[in-house]
Amino acid sequence: MNNRHETLRARLVDALGASNVLTDGDLLQRYARDETSDLEHAPDIVVRVSTAIEAGHALAICNELGVPVTPRGAGTGVTGGAVPVAGGVVLSLERMNRILEIDERNMTALVEPGVITGDLQRAAGEHGLMYPPDPASLESCSIGGNVAEGAGGPRALKYGTTRDYVLGLEFALPDGSVIITGGKFVKNATGFDLCGLITGSEGTLAVITKILLRLVPAPPFTLDLLLPYDTLEAAVDDVYAILANKILPSALEFMEEDAIRITARHLGEDMPFPKARAHLLVQLDGPSGESVRDQAAAVAGCVGVPDGRIIAAESRTQSERIWRARRAIREAITAESPVFLAEDTVVPRSEIPPFLKGIKGYLNGKGLRSVMFGHAGDGNVHIDVLRGAMGRAEWDSTLPELKKNIYEIAIAHGGTITGEHGIGYTRRDYLGLALGEEQLALLKRIKSAFDPHGILNPHKIFVD
Amino acid sequence: MNNRHETLRARLVDALGASNVLTDGDLLQRYARDETSDLEHAPDIVVRVSTAIEAGHALAICNELGVPVTPRGAGTGVTGGAVPVAGGVVLSLERMNRILEIDERNMTALVEPGVITGDLQRAAGEHGLMYPPDPASLESCSIGGNVAEGAGGPRALKYGTTRDYVLGLEFALPDGSVIITGGKFVKNATGFDLCGLITGSEGTLAVITKILLRLVPAPPFTLDLLLPYDTLEAAVDDVYAILANKILPSALEFMEEDAIRITARHLGEDMPFPKARAHLLVQLDGPSGESVRDQAAAVAGCVGVPDGRIIAAESRTQSERIWRARRAIREAITAESPVFLAEDTVVPRSEIPPFLKGIKGYLNGKGLRSVMFGHAGDGNVHIDVLRGAMGRAEWDSTLPELKKNIYEIAIAHGGTITGEHGIGYTRRDYLGLALGEEQLALLKRIKSAFDPHGILNPHKIFVD
Repeated sequence: MNNRHETLRARLVDALGASNVLTDGDLLQRYARDETSDLEHAPDIVVRVSTAIEAGHALAICNELGVPVTPRGAGTGVTGGAVPVAGGVVLSLERMNRILEIDERNMTALVEPGVITGDLQRAAGEHGLMYPPDPASLESCSIGGNVAEGAGGPRALKYGTTRDYVLGLEFALPDGSVIITGGKFVKNATGFDLCGLITGSEGTLAVITKILLRLVPAPPFTLDLLLPYDTLEAAVDDVYAILANKILPSALEFMEEDAIRITARHLGEDMPFPKARAHLLVQLDGPSGESVRDQAAAVAGCVGVPDGRIIAAESRTQSERIWRARRAIREAITAESPVFLAEDTVVPRSEIPPFLKGIKGYLNGKGLRSVMFGHAGDGNVHIDVLRGAMGRAEWDSTLPELKKNIYEIAIAHGGTITGEHGIGYTRRDYLGLALGEEQLALLKRIKSAFDPHGILNPHKIFVD
Repeated sequence: MNNRHETLRARLVDALGASNVLTDGDLLQRYARDETSDLEHAPDIVVRVSTAIEAGHALAICNELGVPVTPRGAGTGVTGGAVPVAGGVVLSLERMNRILEIDERNMTALVEPGVITGDLQRAAGEHGLMYPPDPASLESCSIGGNVAEGAGGPRALKYGTTRDYVLGLEFALPDGSVIITGGKFVKNATGFDLCGLITGSEGTLAVITKILLRLVPAPPFTLDLLLPYDTLEAAVDDVYAILANKILPSALEFMEEDAIRITARHLGEDMPFPKARAHLLVQLDGPSGESVRDQAAAVAGCVGVPDGRIIAAESRTQSERIWRARRAIREAITAESPVFLAEDTVVPRSEIPPFLKGIKGYLNGKGLRSVMFGHAGDGNVHIDVLRGAMGRAEWDSTLPELKKNIYEIAIAHGGTITGEHGIGYTRRDYLGLALGEEQLALLKRIKSAFDPHGILNPHKIFVD
């Protein structure tokens, strides 16, 4: 074992240089976690690559020696995707953090995977362009991680998820080969869609080393509306009313009452409608102030909330205030209960009310508090279950049943396990609930087409 | 061989019933062609399935006996995807032509693959919804074929291609298993994106038996503009000017002068601007008459064509007239030269002028007439090369060089072989030009994950 470790280290140093191969225990510890609650495992070695060729070299060495490789971006995932649960090598893309090109004319960005998503958004903004996907972690997550996870965000309703913006990829395979696919064109029927397959594959198929992204013209005007409701059903009815009236908001978020209350307490301030059972947060965007005001009037005309009860925030400051509670939810939950279960099931939009009612009923029966919020417009519901005062041992033994029930309730409502956070490590035992045995077997065969020896991010997505 | 044929026939009859297994020569001949110029091969047997289970049975029998299976929708493809070039069985989906559900609340359609795309569009329209992809053949092509090919159309600029609307699939594999993936949700991070992989796989991975599609609210107002140009460069400059000014037309098409001339002659009528070197055809849509007129004013304000020279068509009749030439191009070409080469290369938008100049130069050098038109907004350029008076033998011997040069010029401009028509049979020799050996090998391994014995649509996409 020690000999094998030494051989591995020596070969990696030979290929990448000593400064890019970390074996010091303290340093390794920094690569032991991502933002998944309660999951930690240190790698044996960390390599930091600067090019696709280097990534290929590192992969080929590990492939030959049968060593697990866990690719890592900024480590902000919440299902353990970047945690090297099998030990081995963490392949860090942190040094590959350059925005290589913003092509204004073709409206594309060419970036390395380590670029922070917020930085890319600002760079695009300087050219009057927008990179729409906006995961909540956008100031700390990397674009490579977004691609690996197929990240979403509130704007997915109007603009889609990361998947809809990946025009091209450079990636390295376990055999060391480097492949470039796609290009500066939005239509492509030249062979299978590898960009789409690798997006959301959670580091199990390839290591992404360069990304070509589609940008869109930045809408210069936005307007946020906050709407209070007496029932969650009424809020979801209005989600449908808005969409049915041909209004396509850039975001259409909901918070149910527990989310409102816990966040108000955390922020130590009164919420606009403290007694509401649910809020809708509607963001409109458009080419002119008039166009967004027209949309706002159309919203007011079709929803069940009286016009006078709708708060409209046109300035940046007002907008920040209105989004503050939505963005502070996760923080508020962590302050309330450091250990919690974060699920992001997705159901058909029409099923949100009965689904949430079913989940609440189940969790209340177990004596567990939960906080629900998320992307009402696209049916992607965040369900955070707080450990609260429950003893550690009971929590640990309850978790599997908890997850299984939440997933089964989602699936019974025509939904599935995860809308944007992926399967990763924490949900792999349950993938079969959603996909069935034959589909799972097919996914494993696809995995083998990329990674025949199973070295890439083992124990993720699949139970081996 | 005769024994083998008899065994195959008997087993298929046993599984599907005699009326669903065609062996009569005249009938087989009907399944020998699609709309690919100059390509024909009859199958040995045609089976018409009505369910996924039946498709699975037929596939499993052929898989066991090593018989090629060519899935077939409406047979409107132009790269030979539905032509059974290896003989064997054609698996026809023509009987699976029901629209099973339009779910207004979740804005989805559940359909069988044999549904004609235009019928689906009308069914969605009855609910105030729209299925955006609009291939030119929409009144004759089937939605299953659209998914298999990843079909596009003019509206792809604003609304994307078929790929962007497939939320779920039911499909049968060569081993007879039937898999259901996806659902009524627009976000999904539950395992690899099989919908995306199968969309555009040209019948080489699976037989699609049911499709769940995303619909969008139908924009009630459209307005078409026709703009004449003295140079193609000026037209493409305006494509960029329009997009850079945050105007996103639902279509942004161009026709260069040869396309205008040949179509005018075919229609026997004067075109609005007969001396123009290029036309742009801009379609705007929106929620109100005012919104489309605002967009039209914005277009007029940013393009290089004087306002008085822009033709605006607000009524359906006016719009039909303005689109007539665009839609009649293929027909005009066929009338002019029954044998022609139809390419649909795609290049970065900014490269359209030098690319077309390069192609024209090359083709003129060979003494060949060509007609160019297509989707300027997304860089997808249709290049039809007419055989004209060239002798049959010379044409046949020239074709390979012609294709290779067109693809190589596209690739040199940062583009690729096909934007929407696929590789199929006619382009398979050239896929390596765009993808390289390692990527080709990866695609073949993916193919094997679905179809280990290579029975599904052999000789398509890949040279075996």
